[in-house]
Amino acid sequence: MDGHSLIKQYWRACEERDWEAFGRTVAPDVVYRDPQTREIVRGRADYVAFNQTYPGDWHLTVERVIARDDEGVSWTSFAVGDETMTGLCFFRFGDGLITEIDDFWPEPYEPPTREVPVVDRY
Amino acid sequence: MDGHSLIKQYWRACEERDWEAFGRTVAPDVVYRDPQTREIVRGRADYVAFNQTYPGDWHLTVERVIARDDEGVSWTSFAVGDETMTGLCFFRFGDGLITEIDDFWPEPYEPPTREVPVVDRY
Repeated sequence: MDGHSLIKQYWRACEERDWEAFGRTVAPDVVYRDPQTREIVRGRADYVAFNQTYPGDWHLTVERVIARDDEGVSWTSFAVGDETMTGLCFFRFGDGLITEIDDFWPEPYEPPTREVPVVDRY
Repeated sequence: MDGHSLIKQYWRACEERDWEAFGRTVAPDVVYRDPQTREIVRGRADYVAFNQTYPGDWHLTVERVIARDDEGVSWTSFAVGDETMTGLCFFRFGDGLITEIDDFWPEPYEPPTREVPVVDRY
C-alpha cells in the first residue's frame, strides 16, 4: 500500500473505532510523539490503547494528505461537540506500515499587531 | 523546479533575507493564511512585506519537507534568542510557484491526564 492510502486507512479505522484495523496500519514498534506536550507512546498495543481511550465523542475529517514512499503528512479536523480542532500528523513509513508519528495540535490565538497594514482577517 | 526544491528555495531565501529571491518563489496572486489567527495576506508584494517586517532576529532550520507536484509541507524550527518555535507550512503550487500557504505555529502545552499508563515524556 502506498503512503497516501496507508494514511487514509489509518484515519478511516480511527473514525470507525475499528481498533484491529487501526493497529494493522502501524508497525509493532511504532513510536508516537506529541512535540507540544513531549508525550511519547511506544509499541502497537500501547498506541492502540492510547487512541482507544482518547476522551470525547470525537469525529474526524481528513482535509489533506501529502505522502511519498517513506513519509507523509495529514491535516485533519476533529469535531467534539461544537468545537473543531486541527490535527497535523507527520508520519514515517517502513515495510508498508507507519513507524513514526509526530502529532501537532495548533490552537487559535490572538495575532500580534503587525508593522505593515497588509494583513486582513478571514 | 519540483515542489521539494521550491520549498527549500523559499526557506533559503527567507533565512538569507534575500527578499527578491523570496518573492520569485511565490505567485503574483499568492494567498497566505494563518489558520490559528485567521490572518490572511494576498499578493506577492504584500506577502514579501509581511515577511520582511516580521519582528525578531529569527533564524530558521528546515527539519522536513514532503512534496509532490501540486502541494507540499515543511516543518521548520525558528530560533529567536534562546527560544525555538516550530512552524508547519502547507503549500500549494501552480506553474512552478507557490500559490497558497497555510502556516501553523503549534505551541507547547501541559498534557491532560491520560486514562491509560502508556504515555511517557521525552
